Amino acid sequence: MPLSDLSLPELQQFFPKRSEPADFDAFWARTLDEADAHPLDPTFTPETGPLTGVEVCDVSFAGHGGQRVHGWLVLPVHRDGPLPCVVEFPGYGGGRGLPHEQLLYAAAGFAHLVIDVRGQGGSWRAGATGDDAPAGDGSTHPGFLTRGVTDPDRYYYRRVTVDAVRAIAVARSHPAVDPTRIAALGASQGGGLALTVAGLVPDLTAVVADVPFLCHFRRGAEIAATGPYGELARYLAVHRDRVDRVFRTLDYFDAVNHGARATAPARFSVALMDTTCPPSTVFAAYHHYAADKRMEVHTFNGHEGGGAYQDGLNLTYLRSAFEIA
Amino acid sequence: MPLSDLSLPELQQFFPKRSEPADFDAFWARTLDEADAHPLDPTFTPETGPLTGVEVCDVSFAGHGGQRVHGWLVLPVHRDGPLPCVVEFPGYGGGRGLPHEQLLYAAAGFAHLVIDVRGQGGSWRAGATGDDAPAGDGSTHPGFLTRGVTDPDRYYYRRVTVDAVRAIAVARSHPAVDPTRIAALGASQGGGLALTVAGLVPDLTAVVADVPFLCHFRRGAEIAATGPYGELARYLAVHRDRVDRVFRTLDYFDAVNHGARATAPARFSVALMDTTCPPSTVFAAYHHYAADKRMEVHTFNGHEGGGAYQDGLNLTYLRSAFEIA
Amino acid sequence: MPLSDLSLPELQQFFPKRSEPADFDAFWARTLDEADAHPLDPTFTPETGPLTGVEVCDVSFAGHGGQRVHGWLVLPVHRDGPLPCVVEFPGYGGGRGLPHEQLLYAAAGFAHLVIDVRGQGGSWRAGATGDDAPAGDGSTHPGFLTRGVTDPDRYYYRRVTVDAVRAIAVARSHPAVDPTRIAALGASQGGGLALTVAGLVPDLTAVVADVPFLCHFRRGAEIAATGPYGELARYLAVHRDRVDRVFRTLDYFDAVNHGARATAPARFSVALMDTTCPPSTVFAAYHHYAADKRMEVHTFNGHEGGGAYQDGLNLTYLRSAFEIA
Amino acid sequence: MPLSDLSLPELQQFFPKRSEPADFDAFWARTLDEADAHPLDPTFTPETGPLTGVEVCDVSFAGHGGQRVHGWLVLPVHRDGPLPCVVEFPGYGGGRGLPHEQLLYAAAGFAHLVIDVRGQGGSWRAGATGDDAPAGDGSTHPGFLTRGVTDPDRYYYRRVTVDAVRAIAVARSHPAVDPTRIAALGASQGGGLALTVAGLVPDLTAVVADVPFLCHFRRGAEIAATGPYGELARYLAVHRDRVDRVFRTLDYFDAVNHGARATAPARFSVALMDTTCPPSTVFAAYHHYAADKRMEVHTFNGHEGGGAYQDGLNLTYLRSAFEIA
Amino acid sequence: MPLSDLSLPELQQFFPKRSEPADFDAFWARTLDEADAHPLDPTFTPETGPLTGVEVCDVSFAGHGGQRVHGWLVLPVHRDGPLPCVVEFPGYGGGRGLPHEQLLYAAAGFAHLVIDVRGQGGSWRAGATGDDAPAGDGSTHPGFLTRGVTDPDRYYYRRVTVDAVRAIAVARSHPAVDPTRIAALGASQGGGLALTVAGLVPDLTAVVADVPFLCHFRRGAEIAATGPYGELARYLAVHRDRVDRVFRTLDYFDAVNHGARATAPARFSVALMDTTCPPSTVFAAYHHYAADKRMEVHTFNGHEGGGAYQDGLNLTYLRSAFEIA
Amino acid sequence: MPLSDLSLPELQQFFPKRSEPADFDAFWARTLDEADAHPLDPTFTPETGPLTGVEVCDVSFAGHGGQRVHGWLVLPVHRDGPLPCVVEFPGYGGGRGLPHEQLLYAAAGFAHLVIDVRGQGGSWRAGATGDDAPAGDGSTHPGFLTRGVTDPDRYYYRRVTVDAVRAIAVARSHPAVDPTRIAALGASQGGGLALTVAGLVPDLTAVVADVPFLCHFRRGAEIAATGPYGELARYLAVHRDRVDRVFRTLDYFDAVNHGARATAPARFSVALMDTTCPPSTVFAAYHHYAADKRMEVHTFNGHEGGGAYQDGLNLTYLRSAFEIA
Repeated sequence: MPLSDLSLPELQQFFPKRSEPADFDAFWARTLDEADAHPLDPTFTPETGPLTGVEVCDVSFAGHGGQRVHGWLVLPVHRDGPLPCVVEFPGYGGGRGLPHEQLLYAAAGFAHLVIDVRGQGGSWRAGATGDDAPAGDGSTHPGFLTRGVTDPDRYYYRRVTVDAVRAIAVARSHPAVDPTRIAALGASQGGGLALTVAGLVPDLTAVVADVPFLCHFRRGAEIAATGPYGELARYLAVHRDRVDRVFRTLDYFDAVNHGARATAPARFSVALMDTTCPPSTVFAAYHHYAADKRMEVHTFNGHEGGGAYQDGLNLTYLRSAFEIA
Repeated sequence: MPLSDLSLPELQQFFPKRSEPADFDAFWARTLDEADAHPLDPTFTPETGPLTGVEVCDVSFAGHGGQRVHGWLVLPVHRDGPLPCVVEFPGYGGGRGLPHEQLLYAAAGFAHLVIDVRGQGGSWRAGATGDDAPAGDGSTHPGFLTRGVTDPDRYYYRRVTVDAVRAIAVARSHPAVDPTRIAALGASQGGGLALTVAGLVPDLTAVVADVPFLCHFRRGAEIAATGPYGELARYLAVHRDRVDRVFRTLDYFDAVNHGARATAPARFSVALMDTTCPPSTVFAAYHHYAADKRMEVHTFNGHEGGGAYQDGLNLTYLRSAFEIA
Repeated sequence: MPLSDLSLPELQQFFPKRSEPADFDAFWARTLDEADAHPLDPTFTPETGPLTGVEVCDVSFAGHGGQRVHGWLVLPVHRDGPLPCVVEFPGYGGGRGLPHEQLLYAAAGFAHLVIDVRGQGGSWRAGATGDDAPAGDGSTHPGFLTRGVTDPDRYYYRRVTVDAVRAIAVARSHPAVDPTRIAALGASQGGGLALTVAGLVPDLTAVVADVPFLCHFRRGAEIAATGPYGELARYLAVHRDRVDRVFRTLDYFDAVNHGARATAPARFSVALMDTTCPPSTVFAAYHHYAADKRMEVHTFNGHEGGGAYQDGLNLTYLRSAFEIA
Repeated sequence: MPLSDLSLPELQQFFPKRSEPADFDAFWARTLDEADAHPLDPTFTPETGPLTGVEVCDVSFAGHGGQRVHGWLVLPVHRDGPLPCVVEFPGYGGGRGLPHEQLLYAAAGFAHLVIDVRGQGGSWRAGATGDDAPAGDGSTHPGFLTRGVTDPDRYYYRRVTVDAVRAIAVARSHPAVDPTRIAALGASQGGGLALTVAGLVPDLTAVVADVPFLCHFRRGAEIAATGPYGELARYLAVHRDRVDRVFRTLDYFDAVNHGARATAPARFSVALMDTTCPPSTVFAAYHHYAADKRMEVHTFNGHEGGGAYQDGLNLTYLRSAFEIA
Repeated sequence: MPLSDLSLPELQQFFPKRSEPADFDAFWARTLDEADAHPLDPTFTPETGPLTGVEVCDVSFAGHGGQRVHGWLVLPVHRDGPLPCVVEFPGYGGGRGLPHEQLLYAAAGFAHLVIDVRGQGGSWRAGATGDDAPAGDGSTHPGFLTRGVTDPDRYYYRRVTVDAVRAIAVARSHPAVDPTRIAALGASQGGGLALTVAGLVPDLTAVVADVPFLCHFRRGAEIAATGPYGELARYLAVHRDRVDRVFRTLDYFDAVNHGARATAPARFSVALMDTTCPPSTVFAAYHHYAADKRMEVHTFNGHEGGGAYQDGLNLTYLRSAFEIA
Repeated sequence: MPLSDLSLPELQQFFPKRSEPADFDAFWARTLDEADAHPLDPTFTPETGPLTGVEVCDVSFAGHGGQRVHGWLVLPVHRDGPLPCVVEFPGYGGGRGLPHEQLLYAAAGFAHLVIDVRGQGGSWRAGATGDDAPAGDGSTHPGFLTRGVTDPDRYYYRRVTVDAVRAIAVARSHPAVDPTRIAALGASQGGGLALTVAGLVPDLTAVVADVPFLCHFRRGAEIAATGPYGELARYLAVHRDRVDRVFRTLDYFDAVNHGARATAPARFSVALMDTTCPPSTVFAAYHHYAADKRMEVHTFNGHEGGGAYQDGLNLTYLRSAFEIA
């Protein structure tokens, strides 16, 4: 898979103008306020199973509209005092999976909360959370990206974002977690959600966004050769008269705009042969990110990005961010 | 694309045992009863536009749960007395489209009602009807086939089927339509829905099912190389522990089971190189269809089936069924 | 399918120098003169069938070399006085099809003549006209684009162009048609032929060219990733010593050169993700088109272009061009 | 590419009933008689070039309809007396190529005549012979297999077959060739033509047919996943009403029927992973071949078949057939 | 991806005759004896890093020819007494990876030794062990499967097998490991090696083989549509004269033959849509496996097989096999 | 396949800075000196077979490390005095093949030595030479390009280059060869090796490099969409931390650097649609080539390049370079 986006020197200069609705902050303030009508009501149910080195809780809480959202909290069995916590969001199509798929951060001595992205989890890693979808005003393209996309209030990612923001509070509510040391983390869609949360939650310790999705939707829809940005392109290929309206909705959800409000330090990674989240969309988010940041570039990778190698860098970074000796 | 299913002689003998829940009829009686709580409330709004040979109405009615479902009613401008009516259901991913995409049946002198399949219409022909989806108990694979698939009551096609059954009543309610001459028709998903309606509505004049989908789901999921049966296979590849549960739900929706209750004569067509609706799934439905029937076989076609050539055969057949000289 | 040609701002400035033989006009004058040796001899045979709203004639006339070319003339059954007529040319590989595939323009109150492109009609919509092909000086690549391509006099599209030009006269010869209101129309190959006819027939009312083919052959052969321009590339990959000679022939047939002589107003459409007729080849034709013109841009479409949505725009445009209130 | 046709034991028993028109022999007698109206008129023009070890003549002769067909005659420079001659027919889409592509048989001490297949030679190896194609009764699918396929008299392979039969006489007419020792040889289409010639020319010394095409057209059209049999399938996918008529034409050209009349010994080869000329089509021809025969089976090959390895076997076989010590 | 191998009922009866050299046991006795000339010399070097819950050692030992083979030993930090140990072999193209990719078995309270497969680890998970390859008698197809395949003594998998057998001894040599409770485990190539070890090492506690590779090579080479069996097919497509010789070599390495000597209980899993290790090759191994066994069937999966879901079943099974309450 | 690299005008200006180790010359002087420890020891064994026009010898000689390397020497049977000799290197994955695959240069009156590339010959044309590969420090990606790539001394192409340089001496050692007239020639990998030899052997008469591989590895790894440069990209996608180290090794083997030392005249050819050896990598080598040179450009070809047409040009060029009247 050859390079197909801008060259690295061009990417390093790629600073596209942001497209942001005037009421962006008002929209999100209202959205989160409405969500507060539903008490968070987190539950942590211990899970029994063959794992002896970690303690696993089946987590649920009231997400958008009060709907129950599920996740796992994974803790090292042996711990001294409250732990810093990594809150992780899955990539597109995946869910929280099985507990034994979530061992990395506990093995590093962190608490780890991984939550479902509502409705997802039927494509590669199982999920347990449905999406109570209002009908919206019409048709969608298969996938999640176009559900309700003609109306910001009914757009699917409004619900997902509320869930993600509330997941931070869920993590903080558990007695084993040190609420002052929380990182938001994810790859692809998870990375885009981590950036989104970074713009909406003021006091995170760190943000990790690997090959993030949900950044600069228009460029993604125009140049991504694989992956979910293509759902937008295919939808707009049918609904040729809705192009402006759709991107007006997406402006509220663009992680580029959220990141421009972030205050927590962030570590990004990007893959130059990524045709699912093309590097220019990632650099757009990176260059507009408002706080301390660093970018790891993987030249010969596609959307797998830095993979386990990047996980290693992330662990080292998180230990430092969490001030672990 | 070579032949990849059974040979024609084998297909002609393919008569798989039906898998039918004991409460199949009760389930559908209850489902349609519940729907009756919402008055049909059809509206027909004349559409202006560049077409002078046909009269087009923007139709809407209360479908499942009372949600508004949209369609077009297309009538010849010049007509003498009530017309027989073709009620058509779209193929997977498509909607009612634009009025000028719906000229065939009016040009043949029929009334023509084409309705949206809720939520669809973002992939190839535009739709105008959303789907108010309850969250169900978890994740889905992108597409419509797995929405709520673990529970017959919340399964997506329960809502779609109610809409389709009610569309027959909508057609009958229009003064230009002769309510005693109604045909249900469609290709692929539309063919599957026509067979479904044939099992649930007692007094249709004719049924036309071209390369029907929604027939013998299990075989479809096991052998279809392209198209939406693969959504089931991919979902079950993730949810390995739900295989039985999913097919138990689908038994309520299998057009093989609906057709086994049909009383109207039907014309089927099948394409032997079809990898989306493999011919054995079509022959399964054909062989179990309970009323008068005929099958047109297209040897060298894929899922496009008989295309416009079959449309011509269907017109001739419908004229005869409608007793037009 | 991501964008792969120039960006929209670049396309809007793309004005390549035309490559035109000195005897271009002489060649075509001679060609059309020679054709006049064969009287047009149009025949219109009424077609019976299941369609009641339209009157269909099986048309034939003497095309290039006197060979019979076939088409359909479709008329609304109910009409007052002569009708404006749309003369349509099919896309590559298709023929006139079946009458019930040609209902759009009659439903809008126009006469509609659709003709075969000789030899084609075996790939997606059936045709009824063969091509009496002189042997030329050698081999061809499968397809029609390289038949006789080393010699303008024996090139396949010389015959096709004569047929297309004469089709305008055929339309004008029918009593139901108003000979002063004729539009040439088509998509892909049909759009290229509409532009060609626009340069060779002086008094058309309107021209509609959707995602036209046959424009800027060299660029097409160099950058089209799909579709028939590739036939040229594959032929020249074998006949490496004929590159100049082949493009010298094609210069006589390039719709860019024909359009530069047009006098009728034209409506173009282009799709930015079109890899069969790349947008730069369409903009080349558009920018050189000599008469009043307008371009509709579809950002997220491939070669399907504006599809039925564009048909709607075209109907509105044609009504206005035909001065229908 | 896995095995996808019958298993080897099944292939060894595969003996399908032949479908042969009653007037098969009369058709070919008439065809060849008509051809005799045109004197053969072979010309042999010495070719100069960089090759010093072989003598090359540019050959032409009057093929079907008197049209000039081209080829190369390649002879070893150093020779004693008349040589046995290999007459070779190219594979689909290829022509005679350049003289230095035709060195194998001269290096083995044979005369070698390779002729063009009219019209072909634009896809992989250049040809120099056009095809003067009568229009026939309609459309074709790109490629050569459907040209005139609705009428045996106007079918493309009627012309090609006449050319091939006459090429044997051309070889015999050259003074350097021993007219009593002629082999017909080819791979794929060339193999099918070698078998065809074996049925129409009574006194060949040997026949070599590697992975032959043009055998059991119906099965080829039904199961070949790649290559030109697919042209038939795609044509019949459009012309759904011509299936019987097309195969009735093809029965005159099926190498299975020609081989059933052969008298010369033949060597076949087949590749079990061949999806272009599936092994069952080859075994059908093999089992019906009427004279002495042998089959070489290549288990792990696709349509490349035995390649150069098989060439080596063929050289050894031909030396023996030509009674070279 | 549809089913493409035998049906499940056929698979359950698929019991192909084994092809086994007379000196199979002698060959392996000699091979392992020769290996004993090199003392095992295991080294365990503690690895520092960000993981706090596990203790990781960089392992190396003398494999075939005394060459150093690398792996990781991962142990829970908190442990009481010696632990049962899972010895794992990677899938084709992968190596031991990074320590934080190997957390599953330690989290379940087991010791876990994962070793490199020499030379591999450049395709999906990094490896650290080269392969000192003798030239053998000629060419190879890219990949590992054909290295030295014409000679059992120089075949690549002879070296790999020796490494794998010795890895069991390495595990037993570590003081934290209970040498009486060792399981051999792997997926794909790793599953094939687990079965191989099961035939060569007499006293294992358990064997886990998920979608195993290296079983019934001939059928694999004939029917696998994807993956490394294709390397054999492509090699034999070139070396058409070596088919028998190559399979004679492979008979020594077929896990079907090794499993027929096994004494430890085994758990297999198979995926019916697996085109890399087709289910019939897995059932062949399963049916010939000589000890207690059980098969888990995943109907809708490809070569990913049971994935994390199967890992969960395996953990439960291993706890039971290791007699953990 | 459209153009995907730079445009021709850009290519004509593409003159990238070379990346060359300071000890490049010392490395190769040492490498060739070490090789001299093994006497060349060429053997020429006459091969009997069906070819009467050429004399074929099975050649072997001591290549790198003294390992025997195999080839064919093909001579015209009829010759007067010593002949100029073409030494040819195969493309990636191929070997010397069978003698009757090597007839071109002897037919032109040259001696022709074609040698194996060690280890290769299992993918498309058979080889007979293995590669005695030291283990190196770790894993490889399937294929040859990454064998030992972390260390110039153990890199696979060091061995291959020594073999190639020595092949020139082998040619000169045969009595039928005129040692003052030697050309190095090849396509793809063979072209890269011809350029490499041109930099290491001072007194060649001519060099022919068609679509050469092994030129500007980094650009190849970044932009080649097909072929072996991708092996590098995939290896580096796993070994993300070795990018610099790998390209440091490859700098010693880049034909761009070798060609910058060449003294013999060279003829290059390039194909603008080549995605295996992208044209910019070829132009990089061409522009840095230090001696007289000429480039043939094939616009519409992929990696097949000029094929037999280019062979014809090459024959003419070689006759001139060898001063044959």
